[in-house]
Amino acid sequence: MTTTTDRSTPSSTGAAVPAPAAPVVPTRSRLRPLGAAEVVITGGPWARRQATNASATLAHVEHWLEREGWLGNFDATAAGRSGADRSGREFSDSEVYKLLEALAWEHGRSGDADVDRRLRAVVDRVAAAQQPDGYLSTAFGRPGTPDRWTDLEWGHELYCLGHLFQAGVARARTSGPDLLLTVCTRAADLVCEVFGPGGIESVCGHPEIEPALVELYRVTGERRYLDQAALFVERRGHQVLDEIEFGRSYFQDDVPVREADVLRGHAVRATYLSSGAVDLAVETGDDELLAAVVRQWEAAVARRTYLTGGMGSRHQDEAFGEDFVLPPDRAYSETCAGIGSVQLAWRLLLAEGDARYADLVERTLYNVVDAGPSASGTAFFYTNTLHQRVLGTVPDTDQAVPRAASSLRAPWFAVSCCPTNVARTFAGLHTLLATVDDDGVQIHQYAPATITTTLPGNRRVALSVHTEYPRDGRVVVSVDVAPEGPLTIDLRVPSWAVGATLTVAGHTWAVDPGRVPETRVWAPGDVLVLDLPVGPRFTAADPRVDAVRGTLAVERGPQVLCVESVDLPGERHVDDLVLDPGRAPEDVEGGVLVHGWLRQQGDPAWPYGEPGPGDADGERVAVLLHPYADWAERGPSTMRVFLPVPGAPAPAVAP
Amino acid sequence: MTTTTDRSTPSSTGAAVPAPAAPVVPTRSRLRPLGAAEVVITGGPWARRQATNASATLAHVEHWLEREGWLGNFDATAAGRSGADRSGREFSDSEVYKLLEALAWEHGRSGDADVDRRLRAVVDRVAAAQQPDGYLSTAFGRPGTPDRWTDLEWGHELYCLGHLFQAGVARARTSGPDLLLTVCTRAADLVCEVFGPGGIESVCGHPEIEPALVELYRVTGERRYLDQAALFVERRGHQVLDEIEFGRSYFQDDVPVREADVLRGHAVRATYLSSGAVDLAVETGDDELLAAVVRQWEAAVARRTYLTGGMGSRHQDEAFGEDFVLPPDRAYSETCAGIGSVQLAWRLLLAEGDARYADLVERTLYNVVDAGPSASGTAFFYTNTLHQRVLGTVPDTDQAVPRAASSLRAPWFAVSCCPTNVARTFAGLHTLLATVDDDGVQIHQYAPATITTTLPGNRRVALSVHTEYPRDGRVVVSVDVAPEGPLTIDLRVPSWAVGATLTVAGHTWAVDPGRVPETRVWAPGDVLVLDLPVGPRFTAADPRVDAVRGTLAVERGPQVLCVESVDLPGERHVDDLVLDPGRAPEDVEGGVLVHGWLRQQGDPAWPYGEPGPGDADGERVAVLLHPYADWAERGPSTMRVFLPVPGAPAPAVAP
Repeated sequence: MTTTTDRSTPSSTGAAVPAPAAPVVPTRSRLRPLGAAEVVITGGPWARRQATNASATLAHVEHWLEREGWLGNFDATAAGRSGADRSGREFSDSEVYKLLEALAWEHGRSGDADVDRRLRAVVDRVAAAQQPDGYLSTAFGRPGTPDRWTDLEWGHELYCLGHLFQAGVARARTSGPDLLLTVCTRAADLVCEVFGPGGIESVCGHPEIEPALVELYRVTGERRYLDQAALFVERRGHQVLDEIEFGRSYFQDDVPVREADVLRGHAVRATYLSSGAVDLAVETGDDELLAAVVRQWEAAVARRTYLTGGMGSRHQDEAFGEDFVLPPDRAYSETCAGIGSVQLAWRLLLAEGDARYADLVERTLYNVVDAGPSASGTAFFYTNTLHQRVLGTVPDTDQAVPRAASSLRAPWFAVSCCPTNVARTFAGLHTLLATVDDDGVQIHQYAPATITTTLPGNRRVALSVHTEYPRDGRVVVSVDVAPEGPLTIDLRVPSWAVGATLTVAGHTWAVDPGRVPETRVWAPGDVLVLDLPVGPRFTAADPRVDAVRGTLAVERGPQVLCVESVDLPGERHVDDLVLDPGRAPEDVEGGVLVHGWLRQQGDPAWPYGEPGPGDADGERVAVLLHPYADWAERGPSTMRVFLPVPGAPAPAVAP
Repeated sequence: MTTTTDRSTPSSTGAAVPAPAAPVVPTRSRLRPLGAAEVVITGGPWARRQATNASATLAHVEHWLEREGWLGNFDATAAGRSGADRSGREFSDSEVYKLLEALAWEHGRSGDADVDRRLRAVVDRVAAAQQPDGYLSTAFGRPGTPDRWTDLEWGHELYCLGHLFQAGVARARTSGPDLLLTVCTRAADLVCEVFGPGGIESVCGHPEIEPALVELYRVTGERRYLDQAALFVERRGHQVLDEIEFGRSYFQDDVPVREADVLRGHAVRATYLSSGAVDLAVETGDDELLAAVVRQWEAAVARRTYLTGGMGSRHQDEAFGEDFVLPPDRAYSETCAGIGSVQLAWRLLLAEGDARYADLVERTLYNVVDAGPSASGTAFFYTNTLHQRVLGTVPDTDQAVPRAASSLRAPWFAVSCCPTNVARTFAGLHTLLATVDDDGVQIHQYAPATITTTLPGNRRVALSVHTEYPRDGRVVVSVDVAPEGPLTIDLRVPSWAVGATLTVAGHTWAVDPGRVPETRVWAPGDVLVLDLPVGPRFTAADPRVDAVRGTLAVERGPQVLCVESVDLPGERHVDDLVLDPGRAPEDVEGGVLVHGWLRQQGDPAWPYGEPGPGDADGERVAVLLHPYADWAERGPSTMRVFLPVPGAPAPAVAP
């Protein structure tokens, strides 16, 4: 195991607290994160994801970055070669930095010396490309490329540096300050000079440097980084960027962060910017700014989010649609937007402590982030449609594919943000399981795990979590080490878990969705048993989500399920299936069984006509559903999440 | 009135037949078009559209072309000035040519000398910009612009020339060959040299020159134009253009025209290309090619067309979506794609004579082409959504707006293809009413009109149509002049008109949808009375159109109706309305009345949950619907075409 860095966070209390090896370490917040030394996922699906990430995804990503020349761009820059034949898009540097961040968290988690060695090798190549004044980009500012800062709308220079800083922060928190952090601070100092007071009064077309600068401040204590983040957050929304075809809402430059009412525009940009605004608000005690982000988050979750947690319905601009415009069959729901949403909800959870934030983290992890990569960890969805209407083609495993192809997972994309984003997220997944406050421990996500930490007053706590969640709803939390005096162990009951019970010391009682704090004087060997009703259930959408009127989805625990054509008799098209809503979905071996009809559908010359009778006819069928995140693992298939139910029969029309 | 040109069509029979003053004059076809000397719309809504087009739209378009500098581009080119500060997009020349075509048809229709003068003035400016070898473009091939033919994917050079040729054809057919036709043939000769055998083996990224070259061949008899059109049609689909982000299907370069199964990609491109393929197939007697287009048209109409006739559901690439992906709230349904669809269906009608083609022409004219422009003829929709969820803002009447803004009609767009396309379509609208064959006259569209023509054998016919269609379903066709011997008068019963009757000579009988040919020896004063049941009706969509499951639309005759929030009590949002499908829609003064409920909708934190009861509750309400084409004439409003009906109550779920 690694040791956490001994750098102090610049705590407002003046107390030097070791920063955990985790992303997002606020100086003050309701809840405090735990790092790799404190939380270990010991089994279950998330442990498998972390193992696959370590054994397959990181090497896969590194291979493609090398193969596509995106790593080589740094060598070319260091060697002073022309950028005229540079590889990749203008933001390809960021993929290298996200790999670095993933390697840092992975090294922090596993202590694997080989990971450390690979990380150092990449850092050396990156560092060599940095210019004497701290500037670092392979796409701008060198012979054969455009000048620095000449395309803030689309150039992604500051965006890339943001990812660099997050890598540096990860490295510092997991292994201590080293060359990577030096590269970061040299670049950050230049950014503050160029974009600080009296400098270029603008922002980057793609937010990312905002949370990164706050995190870099948290690691270094350098106040000007926080001030620069504030400048970037406050400038945006004042039309500092040029008008573009998609409108300035695309990069959130339409309305100031403090004034906006809802997340809008490009979904990754929106969630990254909001994450930075939360970081800033927390560090500066700016409750107004925090409230603004909460308001936008609430509106987006209530009216602009897919059942899976996916955000962004528009292909055209990878953007949030208008309220309730959530078509399953043209869902964009980019994997990275899911990751951005997790980052935002996690920050809000730390800041405010509400279970609703952890609810969305869970939903999005299970149904977007986990849907992106294949089980093998070497192929990825960029977009996550909720309704696949045509059989996909098998992507060439040896070629990058267009990003919005969502038939089968592909090894790499021309715009390949998702694989590296998935890699860094899974490498740090354990940090999302639990937090602490002065009174005790909050467990937010359920997986077999150990939680070992020291609360203020040197109060040692060790808990272990035993569960087969989400397959089974029982979560057993054992107290292995208990401090003296009362300790609060706070469990989350997900919003869907109506009918949950908690059992402690032989007593069982009903617990409502939300936070369930249990404060006692605990002894080693004590257990809390949380029983969550994970059985399958039908779910309907608000009538204003027009695209899914007259359908039901099936969920099981935190997982959204789907039907795939490979599971239909004769591999019929999923659009032939009508669900019988009078037969409850049931757990069976290998999945969840629902009942319905397979209708024969004609091919009318014109698809509109006199209303007919209901469509509860056709061949009776029982169909096995599987978790949405697992779809498309068995070859090309049609798929849908929302299943039509028979329409009301057309009534006799009276004048 | 104008006289038709005396140029002969290069008829395969060798007989010189005067070409009618109409677009699309095939050398051989099932049906033959009629021109302005033969069909006059004498009253009703289409006469008002033609009058408004003449009195307002043409001047409006010319004003904006001048104001935006798109006409001035020709002067700059003629003067040899640099193109570095050229105005408009790379295809702006085409708008000038579409204005010329509109002026030509309008002059052919009205004989207005002022229209003729304005046309000549523009032609002079265009002609002056033509280079000595025939090349004509203000965007390429002159100082300060890219070289000729260097961007076939996006440059639109051939596309623009296609529109030039269509203008030249219109002018030649309405006024005889003049300078404009000379400009056309000089440019066409160059195109044949450059892109003919041994030349550049490629095509234009935007089809349009294909039908234009066939039409130019029809006017001039120059066979190489037809051959060049054949080359362009046959090359496409063989990946002759570069791969682009949207994929080669965007410009139909994915599959050869003969092999494709459905219209796909950019909807305007698809319909223009198919129109050219039909023209080519008809001229060369290529039944295989014609059958290929018919197959694609059938599939697109059955599975990829909105109730309005609108084509193209995707904003991202202005493209057809997959089968049955027809979301009302992200409908693209570009006005120009509707016009392209009318052009294609009209060509297929001439070629094959089936009523289904005229059905789609009618549906699209009433619900897409007529929806585009305002009643004033000076503001336009570029896209035609079927569900407006947010109140639009009032566009600045003095500024071009982004093309996809569909809140209120705007005077002009940065990409402003629709206003000029509407202008040329309305100027030639009368030519879509009727056709002839050797046996008689086919009336396809119903409007007060006179039809006067001479059939082979010098058989003079004059008919007049009296009707208040579509408000009223009675269409009276009077025989004013009858030839000796039997004559067939062939009426169309639209597909929705189940229960229609025909009355001739005191006898009334039921007639089915389709063509209704009535062959008799007619005498002046004889009448045919067609009674079409135009009363309002509910229409449901195929269950595979997921986006409108659980809704009904209301149609009346050929018109699709809609509800606007300005017609709801308290201007409530249209999404609060639930339709009572048990109460038939009824004609009332000023519109069509439907009944339903206005529900109060909450603001849940998460829009998914346990299935509830049906939603047939709320305040009882009766709501006035109006034709969809007339919407957004009363200020910002929310609007929808498909109205939700109460869902089936959730059944008791049994395991």
